[in-house]
Amino acid sequence: MFEDMSKNPAAWLSGGGSESTVVLSTRIRLARNVAGCNYPTTADADTRNRIVDYFDSVIARSELLGKGKYFKATDIADLDRDFLVERHLISPAFLNGEMSKTVLIGPAERLSIMVNEEDHLRIQALSSGLDATGSFDLAQQYETEVGKYLEYDYDKDFGYLTACPTNAGTGMRASVLIHLPGLVLTRDIEKLISRITRAGLIVRGFYGEGSDVLGNLFQVSNQNTLGISESDILNQITHVTKEIIEEEAKARQRLMDEAADMIEDKIWRAFGILKHSRVLTSEEVMNLLSAVRLGHSMNIIDFLDVALINEILLLSQPAHLQKFYGAEMDPNKRDFVRAQMVREKLRNTGP
Amino acid sequence: MFEDMSKNPAAWLSGGGSESTVVLSTRIRLARNVAGCNYPTTADADTRNRIVDYFDSVIARSELLGKGKYFKATDIADLDRDFLVERHLISPAFLNGEMSKTVLIGPAERLSIMVNEEDHLRIQALSSGLDATGSFDLAQQYETEVGKYLEYDYDKDFGYLTACPTNAGTGMRASVLIHLPGLVLTRDIEKLISRITRAGLIVRGFYGEGSDVLGNLFQVSNQNTLGISESDILNQITHVTKEIIEEEAKARQRLMDEAADMIEDKIWRAFGILKHSRVLTSEEVMNLLSAVRLGHSMNIIDFLDVALINEILLLSQPAHLQKFYGAEMDPNKRDFVRAQMVREKLRNTGP
Repeated sequence: MFEDMSKNPAAWLSGGGSESTVVLSTRIRLARNVAGCNYPTTADADTRNRIVDYFDSVIARSELLGKGKYFKATDIADLDRDFLVERHLISPAFLNGEMSKTVLIGPAERLSIMVNEEDHLRIQALSSGLDATGSFDLAQQYETEVGKYLEYDYDKDFGYLTACPTNAGTGMRASVLIHLPGLVLTRDIEKLISRITRAGLIVRGFYGEGSDVLGNLFQVSNQNTLGISESDILNQITHVTKEIIEEEAKARQRLMDEAADMIEDKIWRAFGILKHSRVLTSEEVMNLLSAVRLGHSMNIIDFLDVALINEILLLSQPAHLQKFYGAEMDPNKRDFVRAQMVREKLRNTGP
Repeated sequence: MFEDMSKNPAAWLSGGGSESTVVLSTRIRLARNVAGCNYPTTADADTRNRIVDYFDSVIARSELLGKGKYFKATDIADLDRDFLVERHLISPAFLNGEMSKTVLIGPAERLSIMVNEEDHLRIQALSSGLDATGSFDLAQQYETEVGKYLEYDYDKDFGYLTACPTNAGTGMRASVLIHLPGLVLTRDIEKLISRITRAGLIVRGFYGEGSDVLGNLFQVSNQNTLGISESDILNQITHVTKEIIEEEAKARQRLMDEAADMIEDKIWRAFGILKHSRVLTSEEVMNLLSAVRLGHSMNIIDFLDVALINEILLLSQPAHLQKFYGAEMDPNKRDFVRAQMVREKLRNTGP
């Protein structure tokens, strides 16, 4: 399953779009629940199955949704579930608890709808680069389409109702995946995170809530979903992201002014290690790629494109690696094969 | 001064000779003093100058010595002195104290004679690889030649007399420069050093007495010079070196049996860093080259030859680097330029 997908990077990691040297991708997620049914967290098996049936019938009737690929969670092997998490098409939470869950994956993997995760429906759209509006438009298109067939739980005062009150109102979470090596190196990142947090946004690691910061990749998303309009959220995330980009640019400039040799050395060593090593953990690849990505965006490494950097990032993850080589492997074997994959991808590159 | 020499590796680091994948070079040093004159350590200025005059006249009369290049210490700039130390043509001790010293450098830099170091004469010969007899023959040839013109201080019971009694008798020190990364990685090196020491030999770092072990390079030399014949010393150093080579081979085999991926990874990362980094200290180059040298001798890195590895080792040293680029540089600048030199030397190499 997903063999085709595993050979190609996801469109949302194409390296295209606005500000794509710093912003990898923009995600919009809309939480929706079907009126009159208990939410998945408290629903019994019958209710959960009924929700799946409802959604099945939407897909059967909607031309737009019918174009997607649709899977029952129970039909997805463990490795494939991990694969979809790595691809940001399902959440880690989708793998927990009752398995009466399904997922629809839209064209080019830019759209997915999880059924019976925390809410009945989680509609998410992804774009490469900074593109909150583009992602929102895509998510909304599907939200509107589904809304033709199902009645959403909506309160005229609160807005959309959700399993967790922190999502109520718009039910919307906008987040950008952003690469901030400059601010990490200048140690200004903590100060920036405090400022962003005070401004009502949340900063997390690559894999979302509770995850470590790997490869200097941060997810910045809105905290508030209630008492604020969708367009306000889009404006806020775009505005704050642009501010962060400016801070990052200043940090990089300061580093080049004060320690250009050290920075270039770090970048080139990372490239040298990626190109030649025989054993690589996924964490190390993320950190080395961070330096190479920095080198690319500073025109120090000018022979690689962002798409290749993103592809290696994606393929380095455990499930992707095993899908790519078509075999399950223990962690030691993976570290060996990961280094082999990275070498193959970088074979004809160099200064 | 020494511009030609600085562009080429020394013959004793050619990478040729016996056992040259493990033994870099073999050195024989003969200490001799002129009869009837105080030794340099206690001699007054007149006596020291007289010794230089004596040696000057030997050079004037001897066809063999006349072929060498002859320098007064006071004519050698500081940088050039460091350069000759790095090339193992003079000792660090040659730079200390009174400067009424001279040095003769023989053809292909395999031979040097220091005048007024610790003894009146220190005749040393160097060979690439393991070749105690070859080095001894060369040193003895010059010793015999000088002996035609000067009478050595000799006692029929003790043998040759020297400033420090630990050199008396043969006045001979035989030493091999040997690369033991396997024994360092398996942590068997300490045990081996104890064994060698108990057998009456001395183990030191790359730059001789009191120096750190860098790049897993060790100098093994005889302790005893008295009550033992020259041929016994040659046999002993050769025999012990062959035993060490066997132990090193066993250690490497054990590493490959138990941790081949880890070893190959270490080797290839070292190559990748050398090939791409922008800042390199001489210590780091020595340690990285150690891994690359190991990779070469295990046929893991098959596109480099030992001569190039030795050349980089030599050129990485501070004085060599400054001679090579024809400019004096502070340590930061050197680290930058050293990385540049290493990249140039490795430019067209790769898997």
